[in-house]
Amino acid sequence: MAFETKATIASFGGKLYKLTHQSTETTTPMAVNLYLPPQALTPTPTKVPLLIYLSGLTCTPENCSEKGFFQHRASQLGLAILYPDTSPRGLNHPGETASWDFGAGAGFYIDATQEPWKNGYRMESYITRELPQTLFADATYGAALDASRVSITGHSMGGHGALTLYLKNPGMYKSVSAFAPIANPGKCPWGEKAFTGYLGGDREGWKRHDASELVKGWDKGVDLKALVDVGTGDNFYKQGQLLPENLEKAAAEAGVKGLTVRYQEGYDHSYYFMASFSDDHVNHAAKHLGLL
Amino acid sequence: MAFETKATIASFGGKLYKLTHQSTETTTPMAVNLYLPPQALTPTPTKVPLLIYLSGLTCTPENCSEKGFFQHRASQLGLAILYPDTSPRGLNHPGETASWDFGAGAGFYIDATQEPWKNGYRMESYITRELPQTLFADATYGAALDASRVSITGHSMGGHGALTLYLKNPGMYKSVSAFAPIANPGKCPWGEKAFTGYLGGDREGWKRHDASELVKGWDKGVDLKALVDVGTGDNFYKQGQLLPENLEKAAAEAGVKGLTVRYQEGYDHSYYFMASFSDDHVNHAAKHLGLL
Repeated sequence: MAFETKATIASFGGKLYKLTHQSTETTTPMAVNLYLPPQALTPTPTKVPLLIYLSGLTCTPENCSEKGFFQHRASQLGLAILYPDTSPRGLNHPGETASWDFGAGAGFYIDATQEPWKNGYRMESYITRELPQTLFADATYGAALDASRVSITGHSMGGHGALTLYLKNPGMYKSVSAFAPIANPGKCPWGEKAFTGYLGGDREGWKRHDASELVKGWDKGVDLKALVDVGTGDNFYKQGQLLPENLEKAAAEAGVKGLTVRYQEGYDHSYYFMASFSDDHVNHAAKHLGLL
Repeated sequence: MAFETKATIASFGGKLYKLTHQSTETTTPMAVNLYLPPQALTPTPTKVPLLIYLSGLTCTPENCSEKGFFQHRASQLGLAILYPDTSPRGLNHPGETASWDFGAGAGFYIDATQEPWKNGYRMESYITRELPQTLFADATYGAALDASRVSITGHSMGGHGALTLYLKNPGMYKSVSAFAPIANPGKCPWGEKAFTGYLGGDREGWKRHDASELVKGWDKGVDLKALVDVGTGDNFYKQGQLLPENLEKAAAEAGVKGLTVRYQEGYDHSYYFMASFSDDHVNHAAKHLGLL
């Protein structure tokens, strides 16, 4: 359904729109922020490409809009940024708000198959189909966007989301990047908890939602166009929640090219880390979206 | 007293230190964040100049550290940033936490003269003397800083703080800037409430803490080295809490030069506004600190 505009905020010469719309997939109202750069707002605007940013556990569209600093470089290059929410809110499934790493704020960008989560916890369909379709068809906001040029990025759980949705849908996105992604969810505590709850105990089935497994299905020699940053001071990295080495190994063994993983000395898991490198990730997307 | 380092966070190639120290002026522990750019952290560091950022009502050192993006440009130029708190905390004066615009989080960067606030609400002495003296004398952090090169900036109540402390102390700071400052506190509701509570009802005495009055005491023809940004969509500006025109008028009538006030179309009072122009304010300070 159509977007309701809750707020319009000037940011780096463009506008950040705080939107909400009723989602068919989640059966709830969904909040989403959209940043349009100045190039999309001039009296003679050009259609700009879009970078979808998927947030991490507990986050709403606000966190990265305020702290990620993506608008800085996006405003210079003429790139729109979409900040979706991380789950349905308010379905009142039993236990929905009991944990910070499962249920509300922790949709993991998959379509749940287990009761009660299969009702509404359909973030994969929401992010890959309903939200972009609604956005690009919107008379106001869609008119500013080039639906044929979309890239995806994300942080932590959202890095898992970005990598897996990219790897599952060749051609849907022009490039992918991730900050501190959960790169092998089938083998870390966060992923095991979420996949068990949303998908059940069949670990073989989990592989369809695991970047380190999905990459094995790509053709040898293909250019992945993927940039990943991980902080060496990130406690979740140290605890084995992220496992970026497993993604690197799987890509190498599959002969897939174009995966750059950078280990950033001393950086943690926070938005301070992301803000420090968001210019680089916008540049990465911009290069593959024809802006650089 | 010496600083205790509560956290060290990598940010834009430098480090953000979350510090606390026992203040003699406020009689409380005071939180303060310090950003050291990479130039101050190399194996052969150079002493870097310092920009003090004063926050607005309700804020702690965290808000601007996370959302202001001063670190972005400061890291490129080699400028340290100091983010003090906005008041003592935990004195438990009657009514201290009853209002968001008076008491805790609202020290207004003055030394209170009225009971009970004269006990501890001494943010002017804290910001201009105790904090910098403690910092520059610190064996670790002071060694990284050039105490002879300091500028000041701030937002809203902190813009009032930056402008008044600069105007009261010629030579203490190399330049001043402000985002949406309370530029004539003696004539706006926020200032009237705070000054009545902290200073009593003598409006003549208030003028010693009001940028639009203080500027009249500067010599004709002097270069103020002042940059002010105000958003035209700022509700507090529209409500007459900021009154930047009064500062402009007073400076013009006094024949003082070098006050640039920019009215930024459509921007609000938030950190989105500040983040959009913090590069400019860092550049302004850097120019007067010999970095540009």
